[in-house]
Amino acid sequence: MDVLPGAFGTSASFALRLGQTVFSSASLLFMCLDVEFYSYTAFCCLVTVMGLVIPWSVTLLVVDAYCVFIKCLPHQRRIISIIVLGDMVLSHLSLAAACSTASVTDILLEVGRSYCPTKYCGRYQLSAAMAFLSWFLSSASCLFNFWLLPTL
Amino acid sequence: MDVLPGAFGTSASFALRLGQTVFSSASLLFMCLDVEFYSYTAFCCLVTVMGLVIPWSVTLLVVDAYCVFIKCLPHQRRIISIIVLGDMVLSHLSLAAACSTASVTDILLEVGRSYCPTKYCGRYQLSAAMAFLSWFLSSASCLFNFWLLPTL
Repeated sequence: MDVLPGAFGTSASFALRLGQTVFSSASLLFMCLDVEFYSYTAFCCLVTVMGLVIPWSVTLLVVDAYCVFIKCLPHQRRIISIIVLGDMVLSHLSLAAACSTASVTDILLEVGRSYCPTKYCGRYQLSAAMAFLSWFLSSASCLFNFWLLPTL
Repeated sequence: MDVLPGAFGTSASFALRLGQTVFSSASLLFMCLDVEFYSYTAFCCLVTVMGLVIPWSVTLLVVDAYCVFIKCLPHQRRIISIIVLGDMVLSHLSLAAACSTASVTDILLEVGRSYCPTKYCGRYQLSAAMAFLSWFLSSASCLFNFWLLPTL
């Protein structure tokens, strides 16, 4: 197999998708479980974006698992284009949501403890960190597939 | 000339660089002129990032102008790689700074007028909008050059 490691259908891609699924789920859980996230726009944005990233990552994780363990699918230009487009949109949204969450948490910490009890702010920070990791892996997937695209 | 429009050395690239220069300068001016931006991390981040984007865009604007109006330079793989890398880093930083600024402004508006007089908040919003436009053009430049890269 002479394709680029990390591109669609390789074991590196499978690992990237697995990481995306884990980190985006962790980000969503840290934000949602027992925390009033709906009082700030940025936190709602993070929850919405992670709610889009998780099904996308899981779907591609399953397809990559099929390619790696059962039978390799051919690289079709149209499919790779769709994957690149989806990854690009979702990675930018993840970055935007992570940055918004991080900066809002920073402001809440600055304004005072009454707006942000320690337990909650720690969770917001962890959620933002997980979203950053998810963005990083999503961006890597996008770059590997984009690199493959002009050669198809 | 059979190169992709928008890639390094074309008139479309010149237009993109011009737009980046204009929008990033506007963002910096809206944030800096007569506004106390240094009291929030996100605003300092925006100023720093725009301070990096402006010289980068101006340099490439000059090179593109030379290519378009005087003499076309050959596409060297190493130079295009450096341009793609720089564009990618700066476009992600612009997006991060723009999102942070937008969400902090949103929070300040929500917390109350005492934190954010109308005149200042309007400026913050304009600055964030300009940073978003700069990110969009920077991202477009990056994609066009990245598309060119594997064919070199």
